[in-house]
Amino acid sequence: MELAQFGIDDTGETHRVAFSDADIEGRKWMMGQMQDAGMDVHIDFAGNIIGRRTGTDSQLKPIGFGSHIDAVPNGGNYDGCVGSMGALEVMRTLEENNIKTRHPLEMIIFSNEEGGVMGSRALVGELGPDALRVVNSTGYSMGEGIQRIGGDTTRLADVIRPKGNMKAFLELHIEQGANLERDDLDIGIVEGIVGLQWWDVRIKGFANHAGTTPMNMRQDALLSAAKFILAVNEITNSMEGSQVGTVGRINALPGAPNVIPGEVVLSLEIRDLSEERIYVLYNKMVERAREIGEAMNTEFSFHPLDATAKPAFMDATIKSAIEANCKSLNLSYQYMPSGAGHDAQDMARITPTGMIFVPSKGGISHSPKEFTSAEDMANGASVLLQTILALDKD
Amino acid sequence: MELAQFGIDDTGETHRVAFSDADIEGRKWMMGQMQDAGMDVHIDFAGNIIGRRTGTDSQLKPIGFGSHIDAVPNGGNYDGCVGSMGALEVMRTLEENNIKTRHPLEMIIFSNEEGGVMGSRALVGELGPDALRVVNSTGYSMGEGIQRIGGDTTRLADVIRPKGNMKAFLELHIEQGANLERDDLDIGIVEGIVGLQWWDVRIKGFANHAGTTPMNMRQDALLSAAKFILAVNEITNSMEGSQVGTVGRINALPGAPNVIPGEVVLSLEIRDLSEERIYVLYNKMVERAREIGEAMNTEFSFHPLDATAKPAFMDATIKSAIEANCKSLNLSYQYMPSGAGHDAQDMARITPTGMIFVPSKGGISHSPKEFTSAEDMANGASVLLQTILALDKD
Repeated sequence: MELAQFGIDDTGETHRVAFSDADIEGRKWMMGQMQDAGMDVHIDFAGNIIGRRTGTDSQLKPIGFGSHIDAVPNGGNYDGCVGSMGALEVMRTLEENNIKTRHPLEMIIFSNEEGGVMGSRALVGELGPDALRVVNSTGYSMGEGIQRIGGDTTRLADVIRPKGNMKAFLELHIEQGANLERDDLDIGIVEGIVGLQWWDVRIKGFANHAGTTPMNMRQDALLSAAKFILAVNEITNSMEGSQVGTVGRINALPGAPNVIPGEVVLSLEIRDLSEERIYVLYNKMVERAREIGEAMNTEFSFHPLDATAKPAFMDATIKSAIEANCKSLNLSYQYMPSGAGHDAQDMARITPTGMIFVPSKGGISHSPKEFTSAEDMANGASVLLQTILALDKD
Repeated sequence: MELAQFGIDDTGETHRVAFSDADIEGRKWMMGQMQDAGMDVHIDFAGNIIGRRTGTDSQLKPIGFGSHIDAVPNGGNYDGCVGSMGALEVMRTLEENNIKTRHPLEMIIFSNEEGGVMGSRALVGELGPDALRVVNSTGYSMGEGIQRIGGDTTRLADVIRPKGNMKAFLELHIEQGANLERDDLDIGIVEGIVGLQWWDVRIKGFANHAGTTPMNMRQDALLSAAKFILAVNEITNSMEGSQVGTVGRINALPGAPNVIPGEVVLSLEIRDLSEERIYVLYNKMVERAREIGEAMNTEFSFHPLDATAKPAFMDATIKSAIEANCKSLNLSYQYMPSGAGHDAQDMARITPTGMIFVPSKGGISHSPKEFTSAEDMANGASVLLQTILALDKD
């Protein structure tokens, strides 16, 4: 609630998009908290806040953990913040109890997660010049934003962590879905972060007068689109698993009540832990589209969009450690995929990674209505702490 | 083809939207042709071009006929023009053959048909101040346009024709559908001009993260919309007849590939010769929407739009006269509704009215690709002439 003050408006809602004044103030406050918890704190060239705590064996690789404190426009106070404050609480608890770990610990507040997992992409060497030109709702580009929050775009190469540089990485996060709440569970052990693929689907029919063209002589692109939207849903549901398929955007042309739509463009998104399965589903949808097109005298075409994320799998040892600690803390849990992207998705490229989910009330996220109870947050932080200590033994 | 020169561009396509310079030039040319055919020509206060030819009995009411020469933006050379040139040809033929009718004849080139049947609405007293403020693609309002083409908006009341003021009204027009071509018929005898009703249909779901919201926990407004679009089609096709139901416009919010649509607004148009049937269909659709909404956890609401046209029935005596003349001219024909609106729809309010359709190639209209063969146009003009002569006997 202290962190939520940075960017709060008259209605009590918080606005803290990356690079905003509120973001900069919030980061400053967070760095103070981290210093007070005994960490050696600095901002890296990508704007990530790094807080280090030495271990008893300086030869060992650091165990990393953290999340982000920036938010989407009109977002809430839990996405990212729970994992960030949870990480801080872990460090405080270790300090208050004079516990020294063998491994050095590294708490990371990733910069600009919501604008394209900027900080973690920089750490794994995936933040290219195109990304730096992307402007967010503050009006600043990523390049300008990095300078603004204390980074240095000319030295991004220096922040890249080679593979094997860390012992492990852990992220505590809200679920952003309603599975845990529905099943009354305390903790979600993330199996993997789903990959996603986007397409534009174009449907060509023939625009004609809606009054003079009989029903049986129409080439109605929107009617074909409607059949395809149902097919996407049906095909996605036809397989066991947690894959999702979504049509979120649709445009019918010419778009007048008295003209039969001659063309429709709609978006298709498929997410799954298995990239192969994404394409199995996609191929079924393409096949069904061909059938619909033939039956309705319309023509479908599929155009991939540049918004691909590869699935990332969480480390088996870490998942087991999380499970063991849920049991010893007497917390109920389930294994589950993450449908949303996270900094952990990038970190998994360079180090064994794990994610701990806590329930989101009503599954609501990216909204001022986001909520997770104090008890659930405490549970998550406890699991995070115990998992770090477990990994530290090895 | 002479008329098509007014507004022709480098590509050979003609642009003659009402109130444009091309419209004014085309009207001037048409008035010259009408004078050359022996008519007494004037522009009425609503901008209609009226050409009168006296009859042998001045006590008798005039027989009216005509159509329009203005076009939709990017339109063709046949919609309106076929009936206008056909009417001119009738007058020329009578003049050349020294045929005197008993009734006075009145050829009418209605002003701004495509912008809302302006001229005919004025004649039946339905052109109100709201309509006069409507601006078309030329940038002129109807009020400005009427002044521009030689009318006078302050004297519109003087052009109103009381009911019973005319003996009959006839309009020759292209079908704008593909029924006649498909069935290889020469003439369509219009039974009536369909009424239409528009609604905005709003579907409320719940916008949520497309990655983290499982398929079975979604309130996807677009999925409900897809089911409704199919239901509109199915219900429209479930009854015998020539009714049409169309969803031509759709908008899904927020409209991003990675967000489940929380709201959809789409247009619903139903047309039929029977207003009662329009509501029978509508009520079935509302009932189905309720079922879809319940099953999908979404909520439908229906909002009528102000674009209602009442069905207009063609006169039985005139239909019989057209049929008899088709037979005597050895032309094939069928009775059919008009799915598009026409000036004849207004004229039917004040006088017995008939419409004669000729085939449209491929059913294409409101497009530069509009085409009707010279033979078909000649057939239509012959039927028009013979029907006028038949009505004149009575």
